[in-house]
Amino acid sequence: MKVDFIFDIASPNAYMVYKILPDFERRTGAQFNYVPCLLGGIMHLTNNKPPFLAFSDVESKMKYQMTEMNRFIKKHSLNKFQFNSNFPMKTVNIQRGLLAAKELDAFDDYLECIVSAVWEKNIDMADENTFYKALDEAGLESEKIKEIIHTQECKDKLIANTQYAVDAGAFGVPTFIFNNEIFFGKDHLDQLEDALKASK
Amino acid sequence: MKVDFIFDIASPNAYMVYKILPDFERRTGAQFNYVPCLLGGIMHLTNNKPPFLAFSDVESKMKYQMTEMNRFIKKHSLNKFQFNSNFPMKTVNIQRGLLAAKELDAFDDYLECIVSAVWEKNIDMADENTFYKALDEAGLESEKIKEIIHTQECKDKLIANTQYAVDAGAFGVPTFIFNNEIFFGKDHLDQLEDALKASK
Repeated sequence: MKVDFIFDIASPNAYMVYKILPDFERRTGAQFNYVPCLLGGIMHLTNNKPPFLAFSDVESKMKYQMTEMNRFIKKHSLNKFQFNSNFPMKTVNIQRGLLAAKELDAFDDYLECIVSAVWEKNIDMADENTFYKALDEAGLESEKIKEIIHTQECKDKLIANTQYAVDAGAFGVPTFIFNNEIFFGKDHLDQLEDALKASK
Repeated sequence: MKVDFIFDIASPNAYMVYKILPDFERRTGAQFNYVPCLLGGIMHLTNNKPPFLAFSDVESKMKYQMTEMNRFIKKHSLNKFQFNSNFPMKTVNIQRGLLAAKELDAFDDYLECIVSAVWEKNIDMADENTFYKALDEAGLESEKIKEIIHTQECKDKLIANTQYAVDAGAFGVPTFIFNNEIFFGKDHLDQLEDALKASK
């Protein structure tokens, strides 16, 4: 049971979901296929806006979103989470790097590196020097990754992934695609679980 | 364990939640205190907009909201639900009627009447004649209800309830208030359940 996981490290909710996926996989037998996308591209293509812009003047809603996020953190013991002070972050190179790392058979290590840097260590990964330094420190081949990131092929692949997500109905991240159905956000994993069970 | 249930029949999600509350009460031991409010007032006081306005030009998000609602309906076997063709509906008299019915010790019957009329029978309850006719047919004292609805006291009470909800942090319905914490929407009932358990 393969499930596409539409992902951009830009979103704290994508982080939250990423952290609970191993448990979800064990429980359900699902296998997640990470599809790196550009959240900004999804927003642009669908006319959508992230909550911090769409509801910037709805104080109680903004406050509740933090409350709700903190409950999720507590429930799942995501004790390492730190809200990044550089949010919102430009993630185009970081996301292209996921595709480069896949080519280099280093996807999991790269993913863990960016996940911890952005949402656990408050690192400004949009800064190019900081970004490549963090990759080096994680034992990743930053020079090779940099090279691939700047190829047209890599840029086109990220665009294609983003278009794939939008064509499937995504309007934000995290989004899951299973059996041509989409499941959005960290609040509807129970619905994904129901769909997985029903398909068995 | 008393939980305030901030409620306006205007919202299909308030209907959805209302239908699953009896199960929730049995399971958790919680008791819900219905607080009739005016959703339009909550929106106005918090600068919020309902999704169908805030995301009117985000086609895939609008489509997903219906998908997600249909999954909820299926999961909880809410087979009587019909989306009201008069949506969005002006509910100020209907909501004042809840307060009137309370005074007349007919709250539950009145609630069942408006719930089924608006979200199961596609009745245009914003139309005054239709509204009072539906009350009569349900065996309710429409004349007495009408009289109370038009008192300043009843109008003020609905305003006060709405202000109470907003002061507690509500920005929409359904919202639950427990121990000075709010829980919004039909997707966060698990978080309310966790809070109830933790308080035992």
